[in-house]
Amino acid sequence: MKIKDALKIISDKQRELFLIGGVISLLDWDQKTYMPRKALTDRSKQLSLLSKRAHEILLSDEVWKSVTFLSDKENIERLSQKDRIIVERLKKDAEKARKIPADFIERLSRAEALSYSAWEVAKKRSRFDIFLPYLEKLVELKREYCDYIGLKGHIYNNLLDDYEEGMTYEMLKNAFDYLRSRLSKLLDRFESEEDTEIHLSVRSQEKLCKIILKYLGLGRDSFRIDISEHPFTTRLSTFDVRITTRFSRKNPLSSLFSTLHEAGHAIYELNLPKGKFRYTVISDAPSLGLHESQSRFWENVIGRSYNFWKFFYPILRKVESRINLDMEDVYRCVNTVKRSMIRTDADEISYNLHIILRFELETNLIEGKIEAKELPDLWNEKMEELIGVRPKTDREGILQDMHWSTGDFGYFPSYTIGNIYSAQQLYSMRRDLREMDSMVESGNFEEIKKWLNTNIHRYGRMYTSEEIMKICCGEGLNPRIFIRYLEEKFGK
Amino acid sequence: MKIKDALKIISDKQRELFLIGGVISLLDWDQKTYMPRKALTDRSKQLSLLSKRAHEILLSDEVWKSVTFLSDKENIERLSQKDRIIVERLKKDAEKARKIPADFIERLSRAEALSYSAWEVAKKRSRFDIFLPYLEKLVELKREYCDYIGLKGHIYNNLLDDYEEGMTYEMLKNAFDYLRSRLSKLLDRFESEEDTEIHLSVRSQEKLCKIILKYLGLGRDSFRIDISEHPFTTRLSTFDVRITTRFSRKNPLSSLFSTLHEAGHAIYELNLPKGKFRYTVISDAPSLGLHESQSRFWENVIGRSYNFWKFFYPILRKVESRINLDMEDVYRCVNTVKRSMIRTDADEISYNLHIILRFELETNLIEGKIEAKELPDLWNEKMEELIGVRPKTDREGILQDMHWSTGDFGYFPSYTIGNIYSAQQLYSMRRDLREMDSMVESGNFEEIKKWLNTNIHRYGRMYTSEEIMKICCGEGLNPRIFIRYLEEKFGK
Repeated sequence: MKIKDALKIISDKQRELFLIGGVISLLDWDQKTYMPRKALTDRSKQLSLLSKRAHEILLSDEVWKSVTFLSDKENIERLSQKDRIIVERLKKDAEKARKIPADFIERLSRAEALSYSAWEVAKKRSRFDIFLPYLEKLVELKREYCDYIGLKGHIYNNLLDDYEEGMTYEMLKNAFDYLRSRLSKLLDRFESEEDTEIHLSVRSQEKLCKIILKYLGLGRDSFRIDISEHPFTTRLSTFDVRITTRFSRKNPLSSLFSTLHEAGHAIYELNLPKGKFRYTVISDAPSLGLHESQSRFWENVIGRSYNFWKFFYPILRKVESRINLDMEDVYRCVNTVKRSMIRTDADEISYNLHIILRFELETNLIEGKIEAKELPDLWNEKMEELIGVRPKTDREGILQDMHWSTGDFGYFPSYTIGNIYSAQQLYSMRRDLREMDSMVESGNFEEIKKWLNTNIHRYGRMYTSEEIMKICCGEGLNPRIFIRYLEEKFGK
Repeated sequence: MKIKDALKIISDKQRELFLIGGVISLLDWDQKTYMPRKALTDRSKQLSLLSKRAHEILLSDEVWKSVTFLSDKENIERLSQKDRIIVERLKKDAEKARKIPADFIERLSRAEALSYSAWEVAKKRSRFDIFLPYLEKLVELKREYCDYIGLKGHIYNNLLDDYEEGMTYEMLKNAFDYLRSRLSKLLDRFESEEDTEIHLSVRSQEKLCKIILKYLGLGRDSFRIDISEHPFTTRLSTFDVRITTRFSRKNPLSSLFSTLHEAGHAIYELNLPKGKFRYTVISDAPSLGLHESQSRFWENVIGRSYNFWKFFYPILRKVESRINLDMEDVYRCVNTVKRSMIRTDADEISYNLHIILRFELETNLIEGKIEAKELPDLWNEKMEELIGVRPKTDREGILQDMHWSTGDFGYFPSYTIGNIYSAQQLYSMRRDLREMDSMVESGNFEEIKKWLNTNIHRYGRMYTSEEIMKICCGEGLNPRIFIRYLEEKFGK
């Protein structure tokens, strides 16, 4: 085998993976936005056909032979730096994929599909017992999965690795233990009695979303926004990133914040490495947490900041002149701290207590320290302990999130990792951009976007997120900075 | 090899072909409706990757071995009737595909892509010379293609076979020669001086389209309508058929007729054979002409009929109360006969003269009797002879259609075949449904749809379209019935 030929093979195969990945994203996007209801059966078949195909490529002997050949000591030294990065990354991905037996993947995805349907029914009827047998099966399968992956240290590391490569149970445990009591105290301190309401028609909400996307520079050339039940962001190809939002009369600013949130993801996706890296495994985010830091940065760090509302309040008034709140009222309203039963309704402080609760339960579950059937009670107790409210039904307790039903154990921490990272990025950015506050005040986000592009986006998967954070912020995950951010913000 | 195993293989492979075909349709639909502009390069790559994959499946040794094994005299006799039909059809498809060398397909699709771009520029600037070298190349390649296919008789049969299996040059020549002078005479006789104008806002047009779709029973469960530059119909899977339309202020009823047209295609697609045939080569239309007969049936035979406007005029008035034409005016307006330079603007009579013109030129071109460079002059002469108008520019003459630029020689006749078939179907249906006129008058299309489903749709590709026409109308293509239809309609 020649180096040139091996490079050609892995380049072709990665391009194919990239293209098929984009097609899968389109199938999924369409399913969630425009697809007629009765198309579901065939759509699932189309999705599984292409996922299988992508998996086959990553597992193919061709890729494996080329990538191991190129990793040979004498060969890897003869590669360009970029090729070396690609080969190392691809090898890791292939190695990991090869650990999982094909029949296990089939068993797991069948169990996940069944479990998701059961959860839907269970949530609707608020009956955990309907979901329980499926959850038990999934926990069993996930433990089997951990065996195949076989990472050192805590068993949970094997799950975490799918979302947060390089992060460990111990690192998270330390961070979350630090946050636990401090967040509860902040919640006591800043809890609000107020209940200001804003009224916005759906048409006004749409206008506000369009306006903010324009200020963020997300034009229609390579981006679009549509409506779906659960907002999400997806990349269909290099210059095709799409977000969705939803409009609610009951929660009239949620569409704006979900748009800011997804726009943060979209700006990241649109700025992933191109050129030599365009169709490679490098052109992706290294972790969900770092991805989430970008959405939280725009949604919370910018979007719920005082300076942002100095800029955006006049726009809000222009779009909906009947609003009789002043700027201070609106700012307080979008930063109301409240004890909520529901994670997705939570404020910047208590949100992370919701995550810590889930982290503690899912680690215990995977360790075998607790059983799935104990979850509803444990959930309710912990909720009372951490947030001070106690769910009366399974629906508003243990059944509120779909994550476990789709087998996503190890996913929840990414949300809080994102929150912590985003605060770290803020302080780092402030040092570099002295004019940051006045930029936000005037709706000029160019330099801020440039900073994020230069310091985070352009690396793609060249490094882990902890490495990227060290480069751009001088250190990895630091919950102290997040607490400082919250104290400074809510202390005012 | 066992029969059971061979059947399993062709069943799996056909399902894969069906699913990939649907994914290709989605990629194409999205490109024409919602895709951001800059995504084009990657989209083309996604499309060609999947087309290549589909082609590989059809050409695979696995399919070929199974299908030839099953076609063995002793084996085929042991199959169920449905399996026999599937095996015979699939074998024909595979046989045909295997005639074309892989490198030729690459050369052809590259030439077609270049040629289409050249045509776009040429049309924009109204300069045939820009398009000429590409057209010459395509004619050459199409002649090479005819060599590979190698059907008996006229060389044009090889092209026709891609769109109208079972139809021959001679059959068309006879039909068109019969129509040629008769249509010209009808054009003289029924040409209109009037120029009634209707004004409809885009919103009213949208409403009318929604209303007619509802009457046609095309609900949102397995159907949708969107907007694109050129209206089209596509099937993404068994229960996912989508049409598009466009709204024009200048031509306010064109959206209604294009919706009726595409709805005709959609009703056909939604009623293709399911059950045992669901994921097989049988679940498709046997020819473009028969497909077009369904769109023309709803657009012209129903949609431009007197009874239809008895039903639809009150709805039109309700949607747009400012209309000051009476029902007779509107009926005349949607049936105005005029000499037009542009095929897509033509009425039910002259439309077919446009097709005959193209048929005569493209057959001569493929035979080598004329050269591509002579086309603009020949076009203009024939246009004057057949329709009595002479284009002043290439844009409104030879460059108006994109078909030749995408290599679609042999495609044009399908339009007139569709028109003829649709008239034949009308007379046949009238015999079976005595109440047809009053059904149309009351907007009750259930029985009409049922007739079409029973007599045409449900066969899929079990027979050729000529065979289906013989079953449902007692005879194949008969242009006399079409002339009778026109005389009766316009003679009133």
